[in-house]
Amino acid sequence: MIYTTLTPKNEERSDQPMLRSERRDLSLSRLIRAGTEILCEQSYASMGVEQVLQRAGLSKGSFYHFFPSKEQFGLQVINHYADYFNRKLDRILSQTENSPLERLRLYIQEGIVGVERFEFRRGCLIGNLSQELGATQPLFRTALEAAFRSWQNKVADCLQQAIDAGELNASAEVQAFAEFFWTGWEGALIRAKVLGSTAPIKRFTDQFFKVLPRSL
Amino acid sequence: MIYTTLTPKNEERSDQPMLRSERRDLSLSRLIRAGTEILCEQSYASMGVEQVLQRAGLSKGSFYHFFPSKEQFGLQVINHYADYFNRKLDRILSQTENSPLERLRLYIQEGIVGVERFEFRRGCLIGNLSQELGATQPLFRTALEAAFRSWQNKVADCLQQAIDAGELNASAEVQAFAEFFWTGWEGALIRAKVLGSTAPIKRFTDQFFKVLPRSL
Repeated sequence: MIYTTLTPKNEERSDQPMLRSERRDLSLSRLIRAGTEILCEQSYASMGVEQVLQRAGLSKGSFYHFFPSKEQFGLQVINHYADYFNRKLDRILSQTENSPLERLRLYIQEGIVGVERFEFRRGCLIGNLSQELGATQPLFRTALEAAFRSWQNKVADCLQQAIDAGELNASAEVQAFAEFFWTGWEGALIRAKVLGSTAPIKRFTDQFFKVLPRSL
Repeated sequence: MIYTTLTPKNEERSDQPMLRSERRDLSLSRLIRAGTEILCEQSYASMGVEQVLQRAGLSKGSFYHFFPSKEQFGLQVINHYADYFNRKLDRILSQTENSPLERLRLYIQEGIVGVERFEFRRGCLIGNLSQELGATQPLFRTALEAAFRSWQNKVADCLQQAIDAGELNASAEVQAFAEFFWTGWEGALIRAKVLGSTAPIKRFTDQFFKVLPRSL
């Protein structure tokens, strides 16, 4: 999916006095957010600590105060990104005023808006890092797979609810289709980037809904 | 797909005398092959001309003798890679001793063997470069999209033959399913890399064959 938050600029900061622990939390969250934005747009290899600090509007010492290494920072960024979308999935897929499949469509629509908002510069951080580091970095591998897995389980739950609500045929294998969805989603984001258009995402998701086995 | 050739090592060279034009062609093809292997494994940004020459076993002057820039080299590598798989698709999808869908399965099996052979280090060059450069480099964009499109047309032809042979329902939208196939394939390669296993590719392609509308 596409991370749609922006690190606040320095001038937007509040002048309200803060406790030391609050300042600490704020710095930490700004670092993580800056790292997330950067890794949606460029490679892990090309991301510099200096660049993260600059984007977060923080001074030099603060990075190693929080993170023993760039690798540990990268892992926290992956977890933050995974959680961000887990919360988004929870929020949208629990809107019971819509049917389960409608909710999944709403989630997709939000994703497409995010892709357009950042003019295809931002990809999926999990997809990007999987491609860059999946084969070589075992520590990242585990975190990336956990992210995929958590999103997949939420979509599988949604498809199960669609069976329970009579939208899908009871024989639909929900885990298989949930994996199918995320696999295709990652591929569709890549094609959208090349075409500079969300059409490949729309075509993929339309096709996905067409092949879901409907209840008879 | 996965490029499974290897640039010949220096010691494997033949000592047979060659014409000047033959030497030229050989050097050119070694450079392109070396570039292809490198870009299946690492980013365009991190690929150095020196590295290409070293892998190709050629001396420093030869790169700029053939290519005015790294960018022009990259484009030729993309075209070479696209053609390599177009030929592979032509070869496997025309084996009329098997049914059209069996041929597609054979093509997939060769792809899986390639992934395993290079222990997940090699990804799809078109997918890799699309992710890295798709959003920013218009020249690459066109070449990458042309590659996707040519592969898609070949799979669409195969699916049309499956309709003609009575394997698929005549209502199956062959272009939509061919695009669906390649979209998911690119995503499946990413997941395979993270898991260090071809299981995600097998699960994706099994699911793809399951959702194809069979003739009644």
